[in-house]
Amino acid sequence: MREMSRDEAIAFLSEGTRTGKFATTKADGRAHATPIWFVIDGDDIVFNTWHTSAKAKHLRRDPRASLVVDLQEPPYAYVLVEGSATVSDDLDEVRQFATRIGGRYMGQDRAEEYGARNGVEGELLVRLSIDRIISAADVAG
Amino acid sequence: MREMSRDEAIAFLSEGTRTGKFATTKADGRAHATPIWFVIDGDDIVFNTWHTSAKAKHLRRDPRASLVVDLQEPPYAYVLVEGSATVSDDLDEVRQFATRIGGRYMGQDRAEEYGARNGVEGELLVRLSIDRIISAADVAG
Repeated sequence: MREMSRDEAIAFLSEGTRTGKFATTKADGRAHATPIWFVIDGDDIVFNTWHTSAKAKHLRRDPRASLVVDLQEPPYAYVLVEGSATVSDDLDEVRQFATRIGGRYMGQDRAEEYGARNGVEGELLVRLSIDRIISAADVAG
Repeated sequence: MREMSRDEAIAFLSEGTRTGKFATTKADGRAHATPIWFVIDGDDIVFNTWHTSAKAKHLRRDPRASLVVDLQEPPYAYVLVEGSATVSDDLDEVRQFATRIGGRYMGQDRAEEYGARNGVEGELLVRLSIDRIISAADVAG
């Protein structure tokens, strides 16, 4: 087991269709985690969410969150990000990222379709700052 | 997108080497999520953890936790479990599950090796009751 460099961790997060598991705190204090499609933009994890989603609700109360991505087969590895989230309803931005994110997870040929589907009024754009990275590569050999 | 039956959700959790992302609440209230190797035993999610791990520490303060498992490629799917965790340091039980869990994630031919490696004093056994399941199959087509 070894730690990754920051560049290696960012590349790990960005590989293929790996989803993020985004963890927020519920009103009653319980931790909640849900899979998200995301891209990295500068020093942020960026994703769309519907304005009534559980995570949107949680972030309005407490913007602190964590995100984990892992490799689910030998040699196993993971990257955990801690940060603070800001939420925007700017429709141009929402649509721009819905297109990029659709391209990552459904293929470039369907990017525009997903941009149109998810780039709509009511969708939000969440930016999670990458404040801290905890990582482990080669967990099991 | 559709909900899974309970049996379908349990089968989804148990498939191959899918890891769980286990979410707990830190002392400062931030949600924390980390990948775990687990098996299902009756109505519980069962896994080993070292006694000084972050999740062991969090569970001693607040036993409520969530676990999410997802399919990271089209058609995408996930199962989220909410429950309450109990922690045991019974070494026989710790070793028994370390063997089962090693077999799931590293292959049956290495189960005993992992049982011996992780079935040691200081390792704990966590049981998360499956109190509530939230699931989605065929998220994107």
